[in-house]
Amino acid sequence: MTPQRRLKAYINQNKARFLQELIAFLEIPSVGCVQKLWPEVSRAAELVQRQLQDAGAEHVELIKTPGHPLVYAEKRVGTHLPTVLVYGHYDVQPAEPLEGWKYPPFSPVVKAGKVYARGASDDKGQIYAHIKALESMLATDTLPCNVKFIIEGEEETGSVHIQEFLKETSNRDLLAADAVLVSDTPMIAKGHPSLQIGLRGIAALEVTLTGANRDVHSGVYGGAIANPIQVLCKLLAALKDDQERIAIPGFYDDVIPLSAKQRALMQETPFDLQHYKASLGIKNVAGEAGYTTLERGSIRPSLDIHGIWGGYTAEGIKTILPAKAHAKISMRLVPQQTPSRALKQCQDYLHTLVPPSVNLEIHLLAGKGDPLAIDPHTIALQAASKACIQVWGKAPLMQWEGGSIPIIARFKEALKADIVLMGFGLESDNIHAPNEHFVLNNFFKGIETVCAFYTHFTEHMR
Amino acid sequence: MTPQRRLKAYINQNKARFLQELIAFLEIPSVGCVQKLWPEVSRAAELVQRQLQDAGAEHVELIKTPGHPLVYAEKRVGTHLPTVLVYGHYDVQPAEPLEGWKYPPFSPVVKAGKVYARGASDDKGQIYAHIKALESMLATDTLPCNVKFIIEGEEETGSVHIQEFLKETSNRDLLAADAVLVSDTPMIAKGHPSLQIGLRGIAALEVTLTGANRDVHSGVYGGAIANPIQVLCKLLAALKDDQERIAIPGFYDDVIPLSAKQRALMQETPFDLQHYKASLGIKNVAGEAGYTTLERGSIRPSLDIHGIWGGYTAEGIKTILPAKAHAKISMRLVPQQTPSRALKQCQDYLHTLVPPSVNLEIHLLAGKGDPLAIDPHTIALQAASKACIQVWGKAPLMQWEGGSIPIIARFKEALKADIVLMGFGLESDNIHAPNEHFVLNNFFKGIETVCAFYTHFTEHMR
Repeated sequence: MTPQRRLKAYINQNKARFLQELIAFLEIPSVGCVQKLWPEVSRAAELVQRQLQDAGAEHVELIKTPGHPLVYAEKRVGTHLPTVLVYGHYDVQPAEPLEGWKYPPFSPVVKAGKVYARGASDDKGQIYAHIKALESMLATDTLPCNVKFIIEGEEETGSVHIQEFLKETSNRDLLAADAVLVSDTPMIAKGHPSLQIGLRGIAALEVTLTGANRDVHSGVYGGAIANPIQVLCKLLAALKDDQERIAIPGFYDDVIPLSAKQRALMQETPFDLQHYKASLGIKNVAGEAGYTTLERGSIRPSLDIHGIWGGYTAEGIKTILPAKAHAKISMRLVPQQTPSRALKQCQDYLHTLVPPSVNLEIHLLAGKGDPLAIDPHTIALQAASKACIQVWGKAPLMQWEGGSIPIIARFKEALKADIVLMGFGLESDNIHAPNEHFVLNNFFKGIETVCAFYTHFTEHMR
Repeated sequence: MTPQRRLKAYINQNKARFLQELIAFLEIPSVGCVQKLWPEVSRAAELVQRQLQDAGAEHVELIKTPGHPLVYAEKRVGTHLPTVLVYGHYDVQPAEPLEGWKYPPFSPVVKAGKVYARGASDDKGQIYAHIKALESMLATDTLPCNVKFIIEGEEETGSVHIQEFLKETSNRDLLAADAVLVSDTPMIAKGHPSLQIGLRGIAALEVTLTGANRDVHSGVYGGAIANPIQVLCKLLAALKDDQERIAIPGFYDDVIPLSAKQRALMQETPFDLQHYKASLGIKNVAGEAGYTTLERGSIRPSLDIHGIWGGYTAEGIKTILPAKAHAKISMRLVPQQTPSRALKQCQDYLHTLVPPSVNLEIHLLAGKGDPLAIDPHTIALQAASKACIQVWGKAPLMQWEGGSIPIIARFKEALKADIVLMGFGLESDNIHAPNEHFVLNNFFKGIETVCAFYTHFTEHMR
């Protein structure tokens, strides 16, 4: 048996166990932003640590931070060989709204070739594919390069402490690698492997408007003093113009216009607008004039309001002007925008808009991240492309990712390593939403693709 | 002793008991819109019933409705004498937000000449003044006219069942009166008795916008599909123009313009803008261009958003586009606007504004009420004016009330009776807000004023 067949046979023979182990991981409600679940977040870190040990990794350790711990592991097979750093995260988004779930979010259910659970696709299932790839290669004696793992527990809450960690020279030395391999981005369509060539950055803020010093009766004060909800609506409505362009002065100044070549490349991405609308249950898409839906959701900047609240929201009516109204806002950024400049522009604009009848407070939210462009011609991306062709039978789509993984731009800068964003989740996986799931075929093929990447990358680096 | 001195002596001798009885009434959390408190609402009705019996009323009964019961009572002293119907309500607003209260809302505290509790001013303290006026006149054998009481338990939730009740001829006969006397409106300033010459009407609706069939990730969909919160903000922002005029087409068509005389009358109302702003903790007032603060809050129509909600509102951030966003809106109406027309205009306008990328649902809320103008020259109002002069030493201010008591316009129409809106609460009583209170001096003087009204009204009707 060739090494490659041996490897494939091992993966095939162990599929059932791999799935059982993944389910045990998905059962842990490691919601990083909910304080009472922090013991569960720690339990998830410890499980990753144990799994890496069991897979055969060395120097496996939990690195404490002021927040959730980092899990570090490595397997060195030769000092002359290239090194790949695998990054992922064991924390998950909150499961709310719970009423939207077909199955309980932390009692994984396997149905029709998918495993349903919060974190199944983002990112527990994907980091497990990496752990199982390492196990499979070590068990079959086929690992061709050095591998390091750094798995964090704060990706969904802004990767604050891994960013701190990366500031230390000794830590950068610990993570030193030729390539950083990340599976935390989607495949654009079923059966179409995808490599991301860019990530949007992100910057977020919370806005609070205060009117009177208490909720007051609309019969007495309605029409005579400012209502913070109404002012908030005016302010938020003014963030976009009638063409759905972001109306913050200067916001587009640093945006690199799309080249004809980039736009042509986007056109090649398989995309069915009817299916897209049907899957979302919407009659029409909406977005910046002059751009396609794919462009709007990936390589153009965006601004969204994630939450708004104020006043009486229970049954019936309470005729008040509330004292306060609030909103949470984020901006997705593209090269060469920076979070700090976008935040300043947004804050300045809101301050020019706010009337003297209310008080405006702006509070920056954690999770800033620079946008990142990836050169598709690096050795790492060429090797990833070959791995995709080998396992999936077709060349990967090279696409921009609309989401943000703030730490990735930091890795590129701090480690001077090439970045490979090769994810196995599907856009239809419902990440960050009820009924998140991971397609098992993608889980198993993901394991194979990771192994193939190590092989091709090592060959190319020779 | 003259009858008048006898009456005054009785009131003075019983002040302590009157206050203790009021406190027992205020202890009952009769929040009509909270289902689990409905037994308490019934308990409040029974207490009113018992109090009226103890005061000496006859035919006291609880009239069942599909909602909270009506309390009816009467005291007939002569068929040739005029009849006054007293209206009030024993239900109260929710006490939320609880953290704003200095004392628990249903554990009344007497401090610095005020009694603090939810409902102290709106409207329990005021209907108690009427019950104690009846008791005092009967105890001193000074009641000069027939008196009826109809006290409801649904004023804060739209007076739905008393409106139904009024549709029956036999019920209108039961309530037949020459004047309807209501103490559920404020005195504009301490020591200034006030008679309202108008009430704003009200019409309310709830708006729900739906985008995708689930909450989706803003990294994937941000900028590419509509965000219901953002669309809601656009819609709500468009309800008023830059001059703070209501922008609903046709909205002002039926509004009777203010006459120079009306405006001059408003100018006479004592009003200190600095004090007004300071008491609310605001730097600037805001409202329809071309009108004063008093006009804006009373005789001009208004539109307010009482609550808004959608998406992620807990700590930190969850980068979603929510499936839904909601708001509760009401309009305050002036003669000759009608709730049905204003609601239709508002709905039509929202439907013209909504883009095809979201779905708009509008749900009308209970509590519609017509605006009401009161002729200041009726015998009833002249008698009320004399009563105020007798007790307070000064002529009452005749003013428009910005609030709405939907049932009052129905009384006028159904009973063909003159309406007297003579309240003893102050604008600073914090009704509908934390720390609601009632000034004890107003409670006791209110009792005297009601007695004086009966006397003057009977004299004038001769």
